[in-house]
Amino acid sequence: MELSERWFEDWTVGEVFDVPERHVMDGERMLAFAREFDPQRFHVDAEAARETIYGGLIASGWHTGSVLMKLLTTTLGPASLGSPGGQNLRWLAPVRAGDELRLRITVLDVKASTSKPDRGVLTCRHELCNQDGQVVMSFEPAMMTLRRPTGD
Amino acid sequence: MELSERWFEDWTVGEVFDVPERHVMDGERMLAFAREFDPQRFHVDAEAARETIYGGLIASGWHTGSVLMKLLTTTLGPASLGSPGGQNLRWLAPVRAGDELRLRITVLDVKASTSKPDRGVLTCRHELCNQDGQVVMSFEPAMMTLRRPTGD
Repeated sequence: MELSERWFEDWTVGEVFDVPERHVMDGERMLAFAREFDPQRFHVDAEAARETIYGGLIASGWHTGSVLMKLLTTTLGPASLGSPGGQNLRWLAPVRAGDELRLRITVLDVKASTSKPDRGVLTCRHELCNQDGQVVMSFEPAMMTLRRPTGD
Repeated sequence: MELSERWFEDWTVGEVFDVPERHVMDGERMLAFAREFDPQRFHVDAEAARETIYGGLIASGWHTGSVLMKLLTTTLGPASLGSPGGQNLRWLAPVRAGDELRLRITVLDVKASTSKPDRGVLTCRHELCNQDGQVVMSFEPAMMTLRRPTGD
């Protein structure tokens, strides 16, 4: 069963999935994103970035998070109701132009809603890794997920 | 003193700042961001979105976070070294086209680095509010911040 076809009751704590899709960071897109949302010198000014602790241009963490989301959406289907937020957002290593990113999903918790019988909350750890297998970002969001619709 | 001119030692726990800049969510930009990074039906399909729990199109949470970052960068100067991540990311209320967003910053913790004498870590609560005063997103990142350079 594809992840996108799953409903709330199809998830089990401890499952781990490697999402097949990859995303390669494009240098021009990185710059444009940073100019729009996060114009710090280490995101938008190649020369100034060389003098910082990063030694060169890196992606805005919000761009990296958006790419994580893009890869995640390849696994989401009609059961997904969005997220109220999450814990342990970590930007662990710089993301640079040309990096190839992939997503690993680990199911941390599966909890039925006490107030809404048609849904529950999955908590997952999302780890975004680069081509060297280094985790560059991780996040543990809660994800509101519908139960399988009954046939009546 | 402008926030962007502060160094690590200029921050005090409990301070609260209302950032003067505002950001109005543009409907076309919301759609384009969501098509690129988060093409869930409640972000990209106006008709399908009406049938969801959101009752219409809402911004991707990563777009909202990027706007929070944009407002935050108006307060950042040479002391800012970026963020290793944060806790308690909450998407509390839908963000829709036309919403006018502003940022409130509360200083939660100020901690000198034990390993790097030139810097410390600020932990702030960032609250993004809409035109009705409703908090639509909050996040508590750690922010690596340089001490004032010595004159020698």
